Amino acid sequence: MLKDVPSFDKLVHELGKLPGIGHKTAQRLAYYVLRSPSEYSSELSEALHSVKASVKECPTCFSYTENEDQCKLCASDSRDDSVLCVVEEPADISRIESSGAFNGRYHVLHGALSPLDGITPSDIRIQPLMDKIQKGINSQGPVIEEVILALDADLEGDTTVLYLAKILSEKGIKSSRIAHGVPIGGDIDYIDNRTLERALENRVQL
Amino acid sequence: MLKDVPSFDKLVHELGKLPGIGHKTAQRLAYYVLRSPSEYSSELSEALHSVKASVKECPTCFSYTENEDQCKLCASDSRDDSVLCVVEEPADISRIESSGAFNGRYHVLHGALSPLDGITPSDIRIQPLMDKIQKGINSQGPVIEEVILALDADLEGDTTVLYLAKILSEKGIKSSRIAHGVPIGGDIDYIDNRTLERALENRVQL
Repeated sequence: MLKDVPSFDKLVHELGKLPGIGHKTAQRLAYYVLRSPSEYSSELSEALHSVKASVKECPTCFSYTENEDQCKLCASDSRDDSVLCVVEEPADISRIESSGAFNGRYHVLHGALSPLDGITPSDIRIQPLMDKIQKGINSQGPVIEEVILALDADLEGDTTVLYLAKILSEKGIKSSRIAHGVPIGGDIDYIDNRTLERALENRVQL
Repeated sequence: MLKDVPSFDKLVHELGKLPGIGHKTAQRLAYYVLRSPSEYSSELSEALHSVKASVKECPTCFSYTENEDQCKLCASDSRDDSVLCVVEEPADISRIESSGAFNGRYHVLHGALSPLDGITPSDIRIQPLMDKIQKGINSQGPVIEEVILALDADLEGDTTVLYLAKILSEKGIKSSRIAHGVPIGGDIDYIDNRTLERALENRVQL
């Protein structure tokens, strides 16, 4: 901690707003910035500006992109228009893409329903999802036949899955949720009760 | 991780240079910046610029300051000019100040000797320390009678203490090192061997 150096305190304060960065860590980071050549703080500063200036939401899937119109995945011709994978956050798409196990289209909700936090269906991208289901991914293409809900396995994710599954079944659209269970390589001894409960419930017939 | 968003990757890269921030954490931070209102990235950016623009080294003690000339501690009239406390980093000064146990002057080395990393006496502020010992903190004031070495209790700190103690004794200046031992409130059961060894060696006669 440095005394009587207000600009240092200000930097500590701003860094401390980042998630998972407490006061002590923020001090350590600010101290590093102070000791580094000024190129570093300029580059970090520039990167902060540029990410806010050039990154925007894809109008189709609501993921992040720097493209003028659609993101690369939405613009691609080789994806299956009849399967839509719904995720909570843009970062989830890259996770699923890197598994190579999905070749359909994506839709980012930007959150999940949380009555406790006051997050209702109108706060997340549920209406655009419904429009997409109505019209298809693009007007010439096939209709959406299946919606895969790849939402988090927490209370908010569960709430959103229940909500969407109900609407989708009313519209006669097949919906599914990604499986939850023991991770590959996971030791049953170390798995929590709720995961094990889910793994037993959703056991796969051999 | 977001694909095909170079400005995001760039921000992750820059944040990943901070100490203790790995790739995963850097992604989480960058993601937070992306989701925050642009005021946040502007303020962080501004704080980064301002810390580099307004913070400089005090010409007397080499701590950081935003003052035009000396830092507040060096400019103060109420400190004892005959005792000098040598520390490795500016942050150490605030630590010692907040203990309230010292009322002399400070000198920041900006590092410690480390032959393994190629850090020699000319790489840290040892020459200005010698000048200060020669001339006194200010030309009208008393000479420095005692130098307290408040350096870290690691290999580099030990090396620097040995080096400085030798020079100081040749110049006939009293030098001392802050005590290392069991911390107050510390349970002897949990103290490492080297600390316990030092605590026994430096036992205080009652």
